[in-house]
Amino acid sequence: MTQALRLGIAGLGTVGVGVVKIIRRQAELLELRTGRPLQIVAVSARDQGKDRGVNLSGYEWETDPVALARRDDIDVFVELMGGENGPAKAAVETALATGKDVVTANKALLAIHGQALAEQAEAAGRVIRFEAAVAGGIPVIKALTEGLAGNEITRVMGVMNGTCNYILTRMQSEGLGYNALFEECAQLGYLEADPNLDVGGIDAAHKLALLAAIAFGTKPNFKGIEIEGIEHISLDDIHQAADMGYRIKLLGVAQRSARGLVQRMQPCLVPSDSPLGQLEGGTNMVVIEGDAVEQIVLRGPGAGEGPTASAVLGDICDLARGLRIPTFGQPATTLKKLPAARVGLPAPYYLRLSLLDKPGALAKIAAILGDAGVSIDRMRQYGHTESTAPVLIVTHKTTRAALDVALDGFRATDVVAGEPVALRIEQV
Amino acid sequence: MTQALRLGIAGLGTVGVGVVKIIRRQAELLELRTGRPLQIVAVSARDQGKDRGVNLSGYEWETDPVALARRDDIDVFVELMGGENGPAKAAVETALATGKDVVTANKALLAIHGQALAEQAEAAGRVIRFEAAVAGGIPVIKALTEGLAGNEITRVMGVMNGTCNYILTRMQSEGLGYNALFEECAQLGYLEADPNLDVGGIDAAHKLALLAAIAFGTKPNFKGIEIEGIEHISLDDIHQAADMGYRIKLLGVAQRSARGLVQRMQPCLVPSDSPLGQLEGGTNMVVIEGDAVEQIVLRGPGAGEGPTASAVLGDICDLARGLRIPTFGQPATTLKKLPAARVGLPAPYYLRLSLLDKPGALAKIAAILGDAGVSIDRMRQYGHTESTAPVLIVTHKTTRAALDVALDGFRATDVVAGEPVALRIEQV
Repeated sequence: MTQALRLGIAGLGTVGVGVVKIIRRQAELLELRTGRPLQIVAVSARDQGKDRGVNLSGYEWETDPVALARRDDIDVFVELMGGENGPAKAAVETALATGKDVVTANKALLAIHGQALAEQAEAAGRVIRFEAAVAGGIPVIKALTEGLAGNEITRVMGVMNGTCNYILTRMQSEGLGYNALFEECAQLGYLEADPNLDVGGIDAAHKLALLAAIAFGTKPNFKGIEIEGIEHISLDDIHQAADMGYRIKLLGVAQRSARGLVQRMQPCLVPSDSPLGQLEGGTNMVVIEGDAVEQIVLRGPGAGEGPTASAVLGDICDLARGLRIPTFGQPATTLKKLPAARVGLPAPYYLRLSLLDKPGALAKIAAILGDAGVSIDRMRQYGHTESTAPVLIVTHKTTRAALDVALDGFRATDVVAGEPVALRIEQV
Repeated sequence: MTQALRLGIAGLGTVGVGVVKIIRRQAELLELRTGRPLQIVAVSARDQGKDRGVNLSGYEWETDPVALARRDDIDVFVELMGGENGPAKAAVETALATGKDVVTANKALLAIHGQALAEQAEAAGRVIRFEAAVAGGIPVIKALTEGLAGNEITRVMGVMNGTCNYILTRMQSEGLGYNALFEECAQLGYLEADPNLDVGGIDAAHKLALLAAIAFGTKPNFKGIEIEGIEHISLDDIHQAADMGYRIKLLGVAQRSARGLVQRMQPCLVPSDSPLGQLEGGTNMVVIEGDAVEQIVLRGPGAGEGPTASAVLGDICDLARGLRIPTFGQPATTLKKLPAARVGLPAPYYLRLSLLDKPGALAKIAAILGDAGVSIDRMRQYGHTESTAPVLIVTHKTTRAALDVALDGFRATDVVAGEPVALRIEQV
């Protein structure tokens, strides 16, 4: 018998238990595929007494994940605890320092400390794999790093937070407001302990930082991402965007521009009949564009025990099969540090204004746009309710700078009530 | 400098030229990603004098691909000639016999001879990679073999012939008949030299045979596939299926049943609002379902210079990076030979009959279905044109055997004109 790949699994929440279950249930199949047995040697979690619905009695127990990482009878340290600092980071560093490869689902850890950890791993001849950190069960890290390795990647986009997409599509389909759906998600357990990670776009931005690093050969730069959550999306915007043939999605986009690396995670409009526009509920989708392959779209469950464990197993099987590539697809020391280009490439925008019922109001709006150099593709004014009337505008392609001039103009004029809404229309 | 990976490329058609272009254009990027230079040593094609739009003067030229495969100064033989027998097969066998790994885009070769070639490769310690053979630029072989290696695959489905999907979606959108679109495709060069490979479903069935082998750990069994082309799909069926909320696709499906391995490549109905139903034009889509991951959908260009070359490069980069796994994801000698279960799992069916204008005609139809044990979900009768009236029926889930009894009943009765149409509704 070929030598077993010996695993230590830290973190026995939903995903950790899912991984243990698969390794127990599919032992024979996994050995057939990888050519060697996968052997769980030891596990680690806080509460040894808790019933997790799977038999753990055959494994050594470590209360301290760092102690697990240090054991000399494991080959791979599987980190499924989460958290960008604290025990997860300490344990991963210890694992690398003591000669183990690492498989992790921890997007926050890698988005923030990925560069340092990748350098540590590569200096030590070790490997970090993190398929489960991005878009759950979708093998997108593999597709981007390996399958599309022949491409110069031109753009990566994704809907990578299922909770946000669930809220936005339910607003659309049920006509429920954001606050009601937020409460529903809280009760269903769809939200992180800090819900701002979800609805504020941070969780999805962690994932985008990792995709962008691979796609563009750059150091992961979470801080360079322009992040905007979905808290301010109104039912009016959802319905009116739909009327004009769009859906609103919390969309992550990374691409190169002349000024550097553009990374945005923000609500955008996408055409209703595009794959991104058609994506409903908690499903994730990643779109990868390359100079040779044109466009690849990957869709699948972004969370959950089975899908996330599937991604972890993909990484474990790769290691068992001897695949050893750098964390971000090229040596960490060769990753470039590109400036964050906060102003994205020109795009059309969706604008919504509340127009006061005054003579010449619409003319003033049109003049402000014209003076800013923003030209109008389509405009709709609806009937007045009380003293204001909603006005929707889809602009032609414009720069964010020109748009900001127009928005300042709207704020300064006496015909617009409240803050204008401006959402980018991403061309897909 | 690390040792170069030395390539011999046989076949300089669209794909071969695309591969040469990428290796020339992206030399630096590819070396960064794989850790070693990719070096084209020699190429082979019939006509050395032809201008292929790329500078080939730096490469050795072999007129005979078998001679190229035999050279002792290449590590990888890249077979892009096509054809299930003849020079492609001889050259691949020679390459393996003389110690080279093989990258190929040749679905016919592998669907027919894949088992023998995989056994030959593995006995010799060599590797065959074939990402470009299935669904063009979509890295689906990688997703299935590696990314989803932790899953017991339950079903694989795909729209994998762009020409067929182009014809079917244009029938739907433009109201053009099959024959007119077939002629258009012939003029646009969308058809293989033998168009039956496309519209007869054979090309797509080759791809399905390869996916099924990986998914279920079985020997590729092209002959076990139930194949039906799109030649008999009428505009009536397209429009009437659409009225009932479906699209007609040439869909390949592979899954296990109690009787063995079900492999079908045939026109099916899928819900209009499913990812498969929404797939338009020449794009390909593969749906993979596994016990852990639930459902993954991959979408992208199924043909063309760039996308197919992208897939070939993915394989070459894998070899440069040292990834060495068995052709079908587990040792070829461990692949099982499952019986072909020609009768698929129960499903609902779409039926279209031309009913003669006789009293009690519809009652007879209903009685025939009832006697066969097939129950009706929905039925529509349209007005009579001349002496017949179209009747559409969507059945509840039924076995093919029960359906065949009903179809024989329709043929025997005196109220049905012509041959009844029966299309499976695939639940996705």
